[in-house]
Amino acid sequence: MSDENDLVAELINGEYRALARTITKIENRAPGYRDLVAGLHEHTGDAEVIGITGSPGAGKSTLVDKLALSYREEGLTVGVIAVDPSSPYTGGAVLGDRIRMASTTGDMDTFVRSMGARGQLGGLSTATGDAIKAFDAFGMDRIIVETVGAGQNEVDIVRTADTVAVLVQPESGDDIQMLKAGILEIGDVFVVNKADMAGADRTVKQLSEMLEGRHDDGGWEPQIVETVATSAEGIDELLETFAAHREYLESSGALEEKARTRYAEEVRTLLREDAGRLLEDELERRGGIESVVDRIAAREIDPYTVADEIVTPLERCLDAREETPPRS
Amino acid sequence: MSDENDLVAELINGEYRALARTITKIENRAPGYRDLVAGLHEHTGDAEVIGITGSPGAGKSTLVDKLALSYREEGLTVGVIAVDPSSPYTGGAVLGDRIRMASTTGDMDTFVRSMGARGQLGGLSTATGDAIKAFDAFGMDRIIVETVGAGQNEVDIVRTADTVAVLVQPESGDDIQMLKAGILEIGDVFVVNKADMAGADRTVKQLSEMLEGRHDDGGWEPQIVETVATSAEGIDELLETFAAHREYLESSGALEEKARTRYAEEVRTLLREDAGRLLEDELERRGGIESVVDRIAAREIDPYTVADEIVTPLERCLDAREETPPRS
Repeated sequence: MSDENDLVAELINGEYRALARTITKIENRAPGYRDLVAGLHEHTGDAEVIGITGSPGAGKSTLVDKLALSYREEGLTVGVIAVDPSSPYTGGAVLGDRIRMASTTGDMDTFVRSMGARGQLGGLSTATGDAIKAFDAFGMDRIIVETVGAGQNEVDIVRTADTVAVLVQPESGDDIQMLKAGILEIGDVFVVNKADMAGADRTVKQLSEMLEGRHDDGGWEPQIVETVATSAEGIDELLETFAAHREYLESSGALEEKARTRYAEEVRTLLREDAGRLLEDELERRGGIESVVDRIAAREIDPYTVADEIVTPLERCLDAREETPPRS
Repeated sequence: MSDENDLVAELINGEYRALARTITKIENRAPGYRDLVAGLHEHTGDAEVIGITGSPGAGKSTLVDKLALSYREEGLTVGVIAVDPSSPYTGGAVLGDRIRMASTTGDMDTFVRSMGARGQLGGLSTATGDAIKAFDAFGMDRIIVETVGAGQNEVDIVRTADTVAVLVQPESGDDIQMLKAGILEIGDVFVVNKADMAGADRTVKQLSEMLEGRHDDGGWEPQIVETVATSAEGIDELLETFAAHREYLESSGALEEKARTRYAEEVRTLLREDAGRLLEDELERRGGIESVVDRIAAREIDPYTVADEIVTPLERCLDAREETPPRS
């Protein structure tokens, strides 16, 4: 565990190499990554996290680039996490590509990291949440999480953000489809990008109609902002809208509430993942699932009895325990 | 547990009331339902299970009605389980409706049972699998599981069947959409119902094209059958196709393989559900998730440490255990 402590200390100390190594460990679920992320937690809580989602081609990367630049001009440090669950590339390959893009900002205080779907080692949204912690503990003022809409996976990822911006392209049938599929509910800000294209006004109008009634609860009223990311048009207004949303979150108590919901989900997800691994190990101990299935197929035992035989001892064990043993 | 033993004995003995009570217990996850289903298992394995899915309005109910009639004419007993996860009605209300429909078959050896999404008491596909066991143990020769396409829930449900038929309406944009969304992969037989409608030929042609290459593995080649369920046209051919698929499943060993896959999934699903309950109980014991979240928000602890504190003792408990205690 001392390796992890050292790495956390270096990261807190602002060493980029330590940040990069930390995120690689998180991505790969490398040995010790749990202690590493556990060690980061107490240093988190200061960053503002913004999620950006939208269909491929909507201009997310360009917009993120411009947002990062503007934040830098304000003297803020920015971390960008680009998540593409469908990407077949390893993190490394995607990373190279995105770092080139980010270099337009011209300094190291914008740190871009791409995460692909490396293997099936647990949820990408967990890894994204952990990476956000690394950026936060490192001291980034703003963290932008960029992801491709519109599956459940992406919705989960983008929900790790405090403020969610949904990018829409004018006259894009695909995008309207996406909005219907549950993205409408998660957007705090809707960005009609490429607003110089024909049909932008119509898209804004459609969006307004779809969003009507969304603020009936007296909470945040979803905003629509028009941008042309390529020429940075509308970026200032977008940043002001983000700031307004942040202010709403803080003054209403919604920020704290969101964080609490996230923590609860995090705990439950980890418990589910850990318990799943434990149960798989227990099945292995019984000769593996195939041997269990042999007995079920032979009608010697049934699935419920198998589950009882594995879970009941665990239940007894928990019941018997007087107090929580200290963490090793 | 003796109540459950009695109920199983009555069910095996062919008492319809016992079958109905069993399925109600399964639906409601009533106390003792686990022992009940566990007791059914050894009496299962003889029924042929057919899954029917398709969009609302495709004519599923009429087709199922006609299939049941034909089976009855062959002297076979038939159980029908109609699953509609989106149904807001209780099982009872839906049941009344469907029993009327089934009465056209004119005898009690067709037993229709509808299952709605009653509360959030675990997966509907688990309940459906358990209900199939009840019908199977009761001695039904054929079990038809009818479900509305096309969500993941429905795909899971229909996979509890040995043979899956997908109903398609001619010229239905919706249906083609559905087929793209993963249903194409699960269908063994595609039924173009309402084949007397204009556009039926085109739908058959589209389907053939979409299915091309599906049988490259030398396995079952998905069949397309045209029916007009209202006039029972094509029903004989459909039954022959079901029988041919059954023969393929038996001779190729795929039937056994499917059953094994299902058993493995059943065990894993039960373990997941049980462990989830166990972990929730453990969170409760720690003052509930809210109190855990309080400590996380105060940076006194972090989610990974919470998970470790709960799961590590379980791990130790399993490691310490020499052998499986007998089932109580």
